[in-house]
Amino acid sequence: MDIEPSTDLSTQSGPASYAPESADRMPPSPREHLASPVTRAALRVQNTLLAAAREYLAEQGFVEMLPPVIGPVTDPGARGAKQVDVDYYGHRYKLMTSSILYKQAALTAFGRIFYVAPNVRLEPPETAGTGRHLAEFHQLDVEIADGDRADAMRTAEGVVTFAVARVVRDRSEELALLGRDPDAFAPLLDGPFGLITHTEAVATLAGLDHGQNPDAEIDWPGEKLLSEKADRPFFVTDYPKGSRGFYDKEDPRRPGVLNNFDLILPEGFGEVSSGSEREAEYRRIVARIRETGENPAKYEWYLELLRAGIPGSAGFGIGVERLTRYVSGLDHVWQAVAFPKLPGVVAP
Amino acid sequence: MDIEPSTDLSTQSGPASYAPESADRMPPSPREHLASPVTRAALRVQNTLLAAAREYLAEQGFVEMLPPVIGPVTDPGARGAKQVDVDYYGHRYKLMTSSILYKQAALTAFGRIFYVAPNVRLEPPETAGTGRHLAEFHQLDVEIADGDRADAMRTAEGVVTFAVARVVRDRSEELALLGRDPDAFAPLLDGPFGLITHTEAVATLAGLDHGQNPDAEIDWPGEKLLSEKADRPFFVTDYPKGSRGFYDKEDPRRPGVLNNFDLILPEGFGEVSSGSEREAEYRRIVARIRETGENPAKYEWYLELLRAGIPGSAGFGIGVERLTRYVSGLDHVWQAVAFPKLPGVVAP
Repeated sequence: MDIEPSTDLSTQSGPASYAPESADRMPPSPREHLASPVTRAALRVQNTLLAAAREYLAEQGFVEMLPPVIGPVTDPGARGAKQVDVDYYGHRYKLMTSSILYKQAALTAFGRIFYVAPNVRLEPPETAGTGRHLAEFHQLDVEIADGDRADAMRTAEGVVTFAVARVVRDRSEELALLGRDPDAFAPLLDGPFGLITHTEAVATLAGLDHGQNPDAEIDWPGEKLLSEKADRPFFVTDYPKGSRGFYDKEDPRRPGVLNNFDLILPEGFGEVSSGSEREAEYRRIVARIRETGENPAKYEWYLELLRAGIPGSAGFGIGVERLTRYVSGLDHVWQAVAFPKLPGVVAP
Repeated sequence: MDIEPSTDLSTQSGPASYAPESADRMPPSPREHLASPVTRAALRVQNTLLAAAREYLAEQGFVEMLPPVIGPVTDPGARGAKQVDVDYYGHRYKLMTSSILYKQAALTAFGRIFYVAPNVRLEPPETAGTGRHLAEFHQLDVEIADGDRADAMRTAEGVVTFAVARVVRDRSEELALLGRDPDAFAPLLDGPFGLITHTEAVATLAGLDHGQNPDAEIDWPGEKLLSEKADRPFFVTDYPKGSRGFYDKEDPRRPGVLNNFDLILPEGFGEVSSGSEREAEYRRIVARIRETGENPAKYEWYLELLRAGIPGSAGFGIGVERLTRYVSGLDHVWQAVAFPKLPGVVAP
């Protein structure tokens, strides 16, 4: 991705918003859901997105690996969501909230890797109606040894653009059934994606009478405001330290600012990806873990690897169901899953 | 697959066995394991096997779907292994031991589906040294609506043959590094795979002075004996009822005999796949669940789907790490995993 001048979000007039008017609708019975032409079309779109992503990343020299689903520790960076404990032969393990620690470790084997990884996060039950939260979901998880943030952003933009182009080419029948006009993707396919800093996003939101805490991640209503005004995906960079996981690298020249990004979809669909340049130095990671109030001893295997040395890296995870929702133009992310699990809702 | 005359295993002289002499060796540190050229080569072989399997199945009209990792119930058919409980918003859920119930349900959406699905089974700690057990592993999980057992066997044979051929073509460097002679796969690639019934397997084992219980699955030492004598994969069919899950269909003309199969690898590598024609009739499934001593009420969502009607089907799951082990000629299945979890062993 070329680092273009920031997109001026305040002057953009996006296309008709796919406002999730029925986002509080709940999934019907498994039978009704699976037999629905909408579900079938969305799952075929997802299948094409993933096949295209695999093709694109393989071409770029990435090796797909199989991710673990449980481990002694997992990503603590999932805001507001609880981790799930499992009893593993008498030891307390966790279900993966993200594969970030394993992605960094796996770079010991290959310089460019990716996972299609299942994650479980017990989001608060009140998020069941946001249209964009699931308790069980998948990430396309990419990591680049010796890469910087620009490499990660370029790869994220490349894989999303390639995958969406493939859907437009091969899934016109499904898009028609879903009522999704392929022209909605013209700005995305023209490229480049937009780019604003976190500070600029806070200022834009202030201009829209939305008070955004400058020391935190963009809140959901704020993210939605920005997303609704955009006509193509855009990156938000430079989140403040404290708003993200300990593995996001602090900019050495700008203390308190992280070399990270989110990728926000247009038309109100909101965040689809988070990424960053990674901290890989043992002593800095230990200090960062302590800053978050956690005990570094929990991360023993990971810290042992860091002590011996792992490559610096950059990477990101793309929410597969969120990307599918956007491309399919769905009200709710659960429509992009065969067996959806909404936060707090008991379901298969 | 043509239903060929049964392979006479007792007269075959297999090639030099890859006897797992160091099968009780444990994985080294994550760093040493991931940096090992053997690990890298095995993971590249695995990557090629999965890419080829996806290509083959897509060509045959199968749709890849993303599997759930937790649910209210899971496959009870994993012999000897414990299920893992998770607390899902105050409800007791399970980690998937296999995706079988979801595969059957998913046929409501598409007639031919597959998953690359993670499974967790708490196998007894004493299996850590068998060379072929992991507590966390993946299955290539295939299901065919309105298919019979022969369809499932033909598809299993087709996908294994295609994937192994692709490794031989594209991974000669890795096979050389692993010390694996590609000629070992000549009988497999010539086809067809062997075929014996469970009854014939029991008789063959009796001739080898191995007392096999005729009412149970082939035990591990027996399976190994048969596997060591074979020069190509072979199916064992017609397992007795009671030895398998409630979803394996009983042959209507032969009460007590299941329309199912295992696929056994040659050279001592043992079982790599189980499959069957499925029982899909509500009343028969409820009766079968009761026969196993379980409470049908546990399976509420699944039984509700069955009551409304799901297609009859056949399918199978292939152990991805076991297939990788065989193709790579590895002593131990953990050598085919980036972050191996051996039964009873605490590891990342």
